[in-house]
This record gives sequence, C-alpha cells and structure tokens, in this order.
Amino acid sequence: MKVGILGSGQVGQTLAAGFAVNGHDVMVGTGHPSKPELKRWLRTTDGTVAVGTFADAAAHGDLLVLACAGAAAMDVIGAAGDGAFDGKVLIDVTNPLEFKGGEMPGLFVGLTDSLGERVQRRLPRAKVVKALNTMNASTMTRPEMRDGLPDVLVAGNDAAAKRTVARLLKEFGWSKPIDLGGIEAARWTEAWVPLWMRIADDLGSWKVALRILRE
Amino acid sequence: MKVGILGSGQVGQTLAAGFAVNGHDVMVGTGHPSKPELKRWLRTTDGTVAVGTFADAAAHGDLLVLACAGAAAMDVIGAAGDGAFDGKVLIDVTNPLEFKGGEMPGLFVGLTDSLGERVQRRLPRAKVVKALNTMNASTMTRPEMRDGLPDVLVAGNDAAAKRTVARLLKEFGWSKPIDLGGIEAARWTEAWVPLWMRIADDLGSWKVALRILRE
Repeated sequence: MKVGILGSGQVGQTLAAGFAVNGHDVMVGTGHPSKPELKRWLRTTDGTVAVGTFADAAAHGDLLVLACAGAAAMDVIGAAGDGAFDGKVLIDVTNPLEFKGGEMPGLFVGLTDSLGERVQRRLPRAKVVKALNTMNASTMTRPEMRDGLPDVLVAGNDAAAKRTVARLLKEFGWSKPIDLGGIEAARWTEAWVPLWMRIADDLGSWKVALRILRE
Repeated sequence: MKVGILGSGQVGQTLAAGFAVNGHDVMVGTGHPSKPELKRWLRTTDGTVAVGTFADAAAHGDLLVLACAGAAAMDVIGAAGDGAFDGKVLIDVTNPLEFKGGEMPGLFVGLTDSLGERVQRRLPRAKVVKALNTMNASTMTRPEMRDGLPDVLVAGNDAAAKRTVARLLKEFGWSKPIDLGGIEAARWTEAWVPLWMRIADDLGSWKVALRILRE
C-alpha cells in the first residue's frame, strides 16, 4: 500500500519504519525535506522510505497518517493541500497537548470537541480514523510488552476505513482494535493522554500502555 | 475504622459492604434513610452496616466516602454539613457525568476543572483523595479479574491521606495505587470514564477495567 506519513518526528519516523518493514511503499512528509538528521535516520531504517514535502507525501499515499505535533495539525494539512486527502483513509495520531511552563500538559480542545473531530471537519471527504494516539511511539509498531499485549482504540465515522486500519494494525502485532464509535470519541482518547503521561511519570517510564482487563 | 459512606446507590452499597466485611464500622448516609430497598439490601450484606441521613453518616465516619451521583455531589455535601468533613480523609468516587438523551455521556466540567477539585475547593479542610472512580462498582472491592489485577489510580494533595487510602485499597485486594499527584489530576481520571464506558459498550460488558502494562 502507498502510505504517506505527515510528520518526521519520533512518531512519524517510527510509523514510517514500521510500515516499510511490512512491505508498504512509504513517503515521509516534512517541513524540512533536506534536514541532515532525517537523512542520517533514513540510512538506519529497515525497508525503503522516501522523503518529501508534506504535499509530496500526501500525493504519494493512498493512505495517509497525520503524525505531527497537535498544535501544528492544521498547518500541516494546509501545507499538504486539503484536496490531497479526498477519499483517502487518514489515520490521525495527533494529540492536542497544551504545555504550560514545566507543568504536565493539558489539552487545547474542550470536552465537547477534539482534534480528531477538527481534522474530520476540515477534511470532510477524508475518512479519518483516530488511532495509535494513546501510547508511546515505540509501542505503536511493536505493541507486545513484558506482561502482555496492550489494547489499541479506534474511532471514526467510516466502518470500512476502520477495517483497513485494523488490518494494518494487525501487521504491527495488535489484536482486534476496540471500536469506540464515531470520530467524536476522539475527545476521550485524546483526554487519555494527559492521564497516561501522569501514570508514566509515577511509574518512571514512558513505555507503559493501556490494557483492558475483562471478567 | 469508622467509615461514613455518602450515597446509597450501587457504589455506596458495594463500598459499604466491602468496608464492613473488612471489619470497619460503617454507616451509609442517604437522602431516604427509611426506603424499603435499603433495608432489604442491608439484610443481605455481610458485616454490619448502619443507615442514617447524610449528616448522620458524615458525623459517624472518621473517614468519609463521597459515593453519590456526580450531579448531586454539592447537594449531598451540603446535606452532610461542610464542617463534618474538617480534617478527615474524603475518598471522592464521584464522576461528573452529563447525560444527554440516549447518547453516551460527556462531563459537565471542562478540561481545566474536575469534580474532585470542586469538592476540595468546597471543603478546604478535608483531605480529598480521588480514587475508585475509574471502574465498575463490582470491581472496587473485588478487583481481581480473569486475566489479572487492574490498576487503581489516586490523586490528592495530602500524601498521608493517600497512604491511608492505599492501605484500605490493599484490604480490598488492590496492589499499590498509581499516584497521579495533586487533586487536579482528577480531571483526567474523570475524563477516563466516558472512554471506559465506550470501551465497555464495544466489548459488551461493564466488567472491564484498566491495567497498565509495562515494558
């Protein structure tokens, strides 16, 4: 599958490598396609990952991943070009984190909105699936942990798009995602992130992840 | 320990029975001390549980538990009498759930406040510990599930109060709580609840609980 990853930070790099290892044709879009760190990183990546502008990557992918900082999401979409998302599945991995001084972050959306919904409203012809925003980057493509497999949560309005995302997640080693319903459920997976960060802070590790136990 | 439970719904009943079985001297406070359902229920409870008004139960307990509906929290505190909480540990199990028609609920607080913080502001001389609000009532006092032990989260400004709560939770079978910091972290454990409800809805059971996996 042709995959365009919008964002070249840790999340974008991890997902690009993960999709490439699984045989997908990946291009990473970045605001700085010639930055040396990116070239250095690409030499160490398994599989083949191309690099281009946000517009290049959005045009390349039949499936797109929004993997930038939450505060940059709308600018990145604008740089990619809204029309490039039409009819495509868009995995939204962003979180609307708001950092104030040295405090633990909150969110810059309210409880009656989310970044996932904002992205879907901005791109009404894209099939937005909120997924993978509830964990550390390293967990996204290698979910198995010492004491078991975490759960992955998806939210989105298009059932077929969620099935496509579930197939791709399975390639990474995830079991069946928990389906939270429409994209408005993104407000609660995004609100999980400040909780997850506080949990990680108490446990002293970012490599902690959510599992749902059942009776 | 003398425990006052404010609220006689499923959460209040479950916690009252749980504390009584563990040997504590429990009184449940309710707006309707003579309601027949409550007497019927008390006959089936292990241990001894007294019933009284909110003021009776608040006066009885050296440790208090706010276990009413979130929307009723301030009225229940008022009925108990604010002064009755002075100097006591108050376990706040409430959630600010907002139900609209048949939809999945949201929260009636914003992302920059929580019911836990409102309770602490209302009762500045109480030692509020937000705990046990992240799960089904049946899990609170019997946490062990088929595939392991869930995690319990605490938030509060008073370290000694959190240690007291941790000891009581251990009696129920919980391991060491994850300490999220001050009471302001309640905004994120409360925001977990709408997510938990959507997860439960997809899995078809309320008996699902959060565990944190570690690498």
